[in-house]
Amino acid sequence: MTIYVTGHSNPDTDSVTAAIGLATLLNAQGQDAKACMQTSLDKLNPESTVVLERFGLTAPEEMNDVAGKTVALVDFSDIGQGPAGITEAEVVSIVDHHKIGDVTTNQPIFFRAEPVGCTGTVLNKMFKDAGVAIPKDVAGGMLSAILSDTVNFKSPTCTDDDKAAVADLKTIAGVDDTDSLFMDMLKAKSSVAGVPAKDLLFRDYKDFDMKGNKVGVGQLELATLDQVAAIRDDLIGAMKEVKADGRHTVLLMLTDVVKEGTDLVVISDDAALIEGAFDGKLDGISMWVDGMMSRKKQTVPNLQKAFGC
Amino acid sequence: MTIYVTGHSNPDTDSVTAAIGLATLLNAQGQDAKACMQTSLDKLNPESTVVLERFGLTAPEEMNDVAGKTVALVDFSDIGQGPAGITEAEVVSIVDHHKIGDVTTNQPIFFRAEPVGCTGTVLNKMFKDAGVAIPKDVAGGMLSAILSDTVNFKSPTCTDDDKAAVADLKTIAGVDDTDSLFMDMLKAKSSVAGVPAKDLLFRDYKDFDMKGNKVGVGQLELATLDQVAAIRDDLIGAMKEVKADGRHTVLLMLTDVVKEGTDLVVISDDAALIEGAFDGKLDGISMWVDGMMSRKKQTVPNLQKAFGC
Repeated sequence: MTIYVTGHSNPDTDSVTAAIGLATLLNAQGQDAKACMQTSLDKLNPESTVVLERFGLTAPEEMNDVAGKTVALVDFSDIGQGPAGITEAEVVSIVDHHKIGDVTTNQPIFFRAEPVGCTGTVLNKMFKDAGVAIPKDVAGGMLSAILSDTVNFKSPTCTDDDKAAVADLKTIAGVDDTDSLFMDMLKAKSSVAGVPAKDLLFRDYKDFDMKGNKVGVGQLELATLDQVAAIRDDLIGAMKEVKADGRHTVLLMLTDVVKEGTDLVVISDDAALIEGAFDGKLDGISMWVDGMMSRKKQTVPNLQKAFGC
Repeated sequence: MTIYVTGHSNPDTDSVTAAIGLATLLNAQGQDAKACMQTSLDKLNPESTVVLERFGLTAPEEMNDVAGKTVALVDFSDIGQGPAGITEAEVVSIVDHHKIGDVTTNQPIFFRAEPVGCTGTVLNKMFKDAGVAIPKDVAGGMLSAILSDTVNFKSPTCTDDDKAAVADLKTIAGVDDTDSLFMDMLKAKSSVAGVPAKDLLFRDYKDFDMKGNKVGVGQLELATLDQVAAIRDDLIGAMKEVKADGRHTVLLMLTDVVKEGTDLVVISDDAALIEGAFDGKLDGISMWVDGMMSRKKQTVPNLQKAFGC
């Protein structure tokens, strides 16, 4: 029986490398596990592609339907973020660092979630607890994921546990300069040259159910907002198209990693509700929200409060 | 901000002692936590009462409504097994060993569940990971819970991890003979003298939602079935009364711990479905199911399969 280990849809570096990491741990413990992802390698986001190449990691294989399969989930526990057929799969393990989602099981399973910045941080503890050495390439992937998820320790989601995990993993992976690794990832991630606006919107995008309203939130982490100035109208056009497909609201976080804030673009049936959620005032269809870096820790909880979830 | 740590409704020894254990760990980590239970001390099941007395533990305080409070859950993650107001409480932590339930959160939290026999086994690991010494009395409570939940290692839910935790905890608690501790608990648990039939039915009882059908499953662990022979009709009467209150099925597992099997009493709208679930044939309204010891690992999964969950 093979355990297919998968991260969430539109996988980011944590979903990709945590799938590799957990599959590696399970294999070391004598189980037959295989890392998967809900995308093909050629459609994988550029940051993750750079990370896989840099550390010589094999890309997880594409898997978009898991009905009837045995699966382990990393980096999510929401049915809506899983592959098709997830409710007809047997979930045997979950490792995560997000809010607890709506996946339920018929049997006791292993579920480990912690309020830390990255799944890689939880996985690092699990390798330690199990007394299993992390292979050098896998450690490089997990290290990259933590730097990415915590925005090089600047995100409010970053904890001391994440910093401790980076200290462990950089040694194993043989990475001296994590700042330079982070900047390489940021350059890849924020590169917009020649990428269609809709692909940019979906690069790091998640849908949420807010009291029966479908709300989509995308995020682009940028070294400077200038990077998207020329394609701003195209991005808004793509957002409107996605909004028209049954959504109450589509938000795009254009996050300036250096200035540590977000230009929040809002397409919504109720713009005043969104303004209230972030205690701001829209200038046209966007507003600067100082300090907003994390969709998970800042944007989504404020939206949930505003929608009365 | 106080964290109220609570186990499931109709608390058993694991729910009671795990609440004490997690509150102790959180307090040692500088948090303000308080153990609670969904019953008053005078209505607590006799096994747990004996355990609290034997190890000199203070009983958790009664708490039946947690609306607006900050809570940590032990030994369950189903909304239906929690106190009133649980969906208006902020859940900050879950430690469990059951199937994953329907509690969700708006924020990342600490969630640790493992497919082991007892929450006490997971807690023992958490104390170790945190480098916090378990107080002698708390270790005694956790030890008792593992012996109870695993039926002194005989239940199919028992794992090597549970055995290892018992080895740790008996040393800390200063208990030489765990068999004799288990028999003392079993004597208390299976004592029926003077107890009304309905109280016996509810001693260790849980309701489940099976595809929209409410199914109640009680269990009495006995040294011999003779212990309930004289009150069998009263128990059936109590089951019929509970069944009449909107339930599809009420089952009572009369488990013979020595013979390692269960006399399953069935009051159901669809007796054939229950027969099919356990591949048996009712003799009147009950059937002997050899090897059936665990509601969680045997009875409930088979019911879920039969109901098409």
